[in-house]
Amino acid sequence: MPIEKFAPISRAACIGGGVIGGGWVARFLLAGIDVRLFDPHPDAERIVAEVLANAERAYGLLTSAPLPRRGRLSFCASVAEAVEGAQWVQESVPERLDLKRRVLAEIDAAAPAEALIGSSTSGLKPTDLQEGLTHPGRLFVAHPYNPVYLLPLVEIVGGAQTVPATVERAKAVLDAIGMKGVVIAREIEAFVGDRLLEALWREALWLIKDDICDVETLDDVIRYSFGLRWAQMGLFQTYRIAGGEAGMRHFLAQFGPCLQWPWTKLTDVVDLDDTLVEKIGAQSDAQAAGLSIRELERIRDENLVGIVQALKAGQSGEGWGAGKLLKEFEQRLWAQAGHTAPPVDMKAPLELVETRVSPAWIDYNGHMTEHRYLQVFGDATDALLRRIGVDLAYVEGGHSYYTVETHLRHLDEAKLGEGLVCTTQILATDEKRLHVFHRLHAGPERREIATGEHMLLHVDTSAGRATPAAAQVLSALDAIAAAHAGLERPAAAGRAIGHKARLATPA
Amino acid sequence: MPIEKFAPISRAACIGGGVIGGGWVARFLLAGIDVRLFDPHPDAERIVAEVLANAERAYGLLTSAPLPRRGRLSFCASVAEAVEGAQWVQESVPERLDLKRRVLAEIDAAAPAEALIGSSTSGLKPTDLQEGLTHPGRLFVAHPYNPVYLLPLVEIVGGAQTVPATVERAKAVLDAIGMKGVVIAREIEAFVGDRLLEALWREALWLIKDDICDVETLDDVIRYSFGLRWAQMGLFQTYRIAGGEAGMRHFLAQFGPCLQWPWTKLTDVVDLDDTLVEKIGAQSDAQAAGLSIRELERIRDENLVGIVQALKAGQSGEGWGAGKLLKEFEQRLWAQAGHTAPPVDMKAPLELVETRVSPAWIDYNGHMTEHRYLQVFGDATDALLRRIGVDLAYVEGGHSYYTVETHLRHLDEAKLGEGLVCTTQILATDEKRLHVFHRLHAGPERREIATGEHMLLHVDTSAGRATPAAAQVLSALDAIAAAHAGLERPAAAGRAIGHKARLATPA
Repeated sequence: MPIEKFAPISRAACIGGGVIGGGWVARFLLAGIDVRLFDPHPDAERIVAEVLANAERAYGLLTSAPLPRRGRLSFCASVAEAVEGAQWVQESVPERLDLKRRVLAEIDAAAPAEALIGSSTSGLKPTDLQEGLTHPGRLFVAHPYNPVYLLPLVEIVGGAQTVPATVERAKAVLDAIGMKGVVIAREIEAFVGDRLLEALWREALWLIKDDICDVETLDDVIRYSFGLRWAQMGLFQTYRIAGGEAGMRHFLAQFGPCLQWPWTKLTDVVDLDDTLVEKIGAQSDAQAAGLSIRELERIRDENLVGIVQALKAGQSGEGWGAGKLLKEFEQRLWAQAGHTAPPVDMKAPLELVETRVSPAWIDYNGHMTEHRYLQVFGDATDALLRRIGVDLAYVEGGHSYYTVETHLRHLDEAKLGEGLVCTTQILATDEKRLHVFHRLHAGPERREIATGEHMLLHVDTSAGRATPAAAQVLSALDAIAAAHAGLERPAAAGRAIGHKARLATPA
Repeated sequence: MPIEKFAPISRAACIGGGVIGGGWVARFLLAGIDVRLFDPHPDAERIVAEVLANAERAYGLLTSAPLPRRGRLSFCASVAEAVEGAQWVQESVPERLDLKRRVLAEIDAAAPAEALIGSSTSGLKPTDLQEGLTHPGRLFVAHPYNPVYLLPLVEIVGGAQTVPATVERAKAVLDAIGMKGVVIAREIEAFVGDRLLEALWREALWLIKDDICDVETLDDVIRYSFGLRWAQMGLFQTYRIAGGEAGMRHFLAQFGPCLQWPWTKLTDVVDLDDTLVEKIGAQSDAQAAGLSIRELERIRDENLVGIVQALKAGQSGEGWGAGKLLKEFEQRLWAQAGHTAPPVDMKAPLELVETRVSPAWIDYNGHMTEHRYLQVFGDATDALLRRIGVDLAYVEGGHSYYTVETHLRHLDEAKLGEGLVCTTQILATDEKRLHVFHRLHAGPERREIATGEHMLLHVDTSAGRATPAAAQVLSALDAIAAAHAGLERPAAAGRAIGHKARLATPA
């Protein structure tokens, strides 16, 4: 990867640790970046710990790629202490210009000269934030969306004094940790996303105030229609399709007159008085139907994870939008893991996959669905293959291992959210064949819940026939096979169906 | 199901068959409803056929539930001919009040007295549409969203003369076919969804006109942030969470002052002149990067399918939003299929599952991923169990069959979009055990691509131990087993890994 496109950092400072600041902390830590945090609020440690717990849960569901070792988090007693040695400083203090200016001046005075300084402001113009700084060229707006640890977008907005290279570097740092840095060409208050949200929000308040609908109906209108569209294509791409073969210009020509219609009430600003606040509050309580904020957060995060994973399978497997972003991030992680894989004890079965039972894996009986066991075993086989040099480049070179036969035994059940570890033993190899035995362990007590025995053949993928593997692959394989030769052969290996087995997972 | 909640119909009329009208045609046909269509446009047959092809492709990816036999489509020469015998008439002609009134008067004069009449108008008030009708009480707005065959929302809006029972019946008909009928309490022009869209659209036009960003940047801002949120929770539920434990009222109190800020340009209406149209057109071409409208439609539909399926797994497996809706629809289809399952030739292996290779099933090698084979075999086992009476009620009663052992052989590959049929042979049974053999066939030539041999045990699910199945289950099972006794035993049954096998699917 060219350094210009991805610029990983190893140390960040976060000033302010509320919902947004805490989200930044989680993003950085899970990307392997050490974070030094300053937040004088008495509840700061608790809030950050809660956000971080949510983020770790969500990442466990989001990806099975090898995330780097989590960064270290330090709570600091001052701005100056927090920004020491930081490559990126993120300011997320309350939305008041005077306060932000004071905090940014402190950051500017104490941070290393080359540190980037991003502000989480959702509306203030960077030019206004730069006033009075000694080194204003490195300050920019980096406006994220809640939950920061899952939503990829960061609007990057430079002010009058921001150096162009700052914007480029900021984008490269964000892109390196799997976020989507989007550069806004010209600064205006509230930038792009909040402008759009604000417009829609005002109209929504009128609809509620005038009793056209209640908040649940309004939310349903969004999430059963254009909300689904916008998770994958935005406004203009969607309308391009709506215009059909006649194209975008034709669509706009049709749409034009509507702008003169008296549809929206936007020329007036609704008065958000006590009556309206109480009305919305009561309707929102009814909509939540007893679910707490914590429960709603969990539901939201699981949904977002599922949506991003669905988009990862989009555009015929290449990924689309936020899913493509995840896929590319995972590919970089896999590539890095290939270069820095920690040494393992080769004399024991290899621990190649560690994962967690995702909600999407649970069937109508409340148990982990049958084929998800095979998914985990498949992931373990993939990890073994990468370890012996059968990586994407090898596959693109026209060779791969294909599974020809599988034998699964279900011994016990796995529960939602439970941690899983898969161990892999090589039973036999020759120049074309690879015979492996996986065991799946659940929970802290590592009870064995399933085994998978697999025969793989090395193939020339274009010719579609078996062929000997490359010398370096065979040599890597032989090294593991030799180390495993001393292991006891699993009693179940080579068994056919009909042997007695303990019972387990639902059909 | 109480008849008030779901009111299935068997015959609908569609007046107008463009993108929206054609979407309605597809929705009705795929729900098993016969459709009579009138559209004088010379391209109507082609357009409807294209929309229907998209819809069938999307449904094939969306659900493996037993959809009813597709309804019959007839092209009619007049409104009067189309509405004959219709229980629901959907008007989707161009958005001009005079034209709609003329067409609705024709419909009203010719349709059966008890027929519901819905208008697809995206902005006209139902009261205005009712003027001059003889039976205005049955007219209402039924405003869908593109693509109509995938997005569930229909805004139901009654006018001054609409009878309340009409609105209730309309909702029950839509709910029965898996859509989400949302009743808007008071009519206004553009209802709720288009009001919100219009507000955001106007602001978007300003952002483009003023060069704050281009259309691709604006779309990215949406789809990497709040678009993902809104696919699963709307505006108010999202802000409820943002407010944290302090709640919605606290959030609103904070938000209030922003409404006075000069953020939006909405007090002016942008002039969508030729210059702006050309600017957006050119930016939209660049964003599409050569993808045609047909390609964009396919990508959009695959993404929507994936998102809805992801939401089906949400809220810990219960489903959420559009995914919960799909789940409930599928459960009704399964329940109906249980009661009306067609007789099958019991002397042959049972054909219990017919599906298609979904894009989400394709791995980095371009082949169907290993565990998806087991997913199809699992679906076939589930279908067999339902057939012998092991349905949701039986499982909720505390008994089920669990798979204890599986043996898979991969013989050939499956391609994206290819049709799959799974056949199931019962090898042996006793009061606790069920030994089955599945074969998976691909393509019109039905080449055998994989086999799955499975041993299942009947269990008491709370005690977690094997127990004899209920008498009626055993009797249903024995009937099939007896019929299958004459079938040849598969040569691969009872094999252990190590036997020679032809090669196939990627690891």
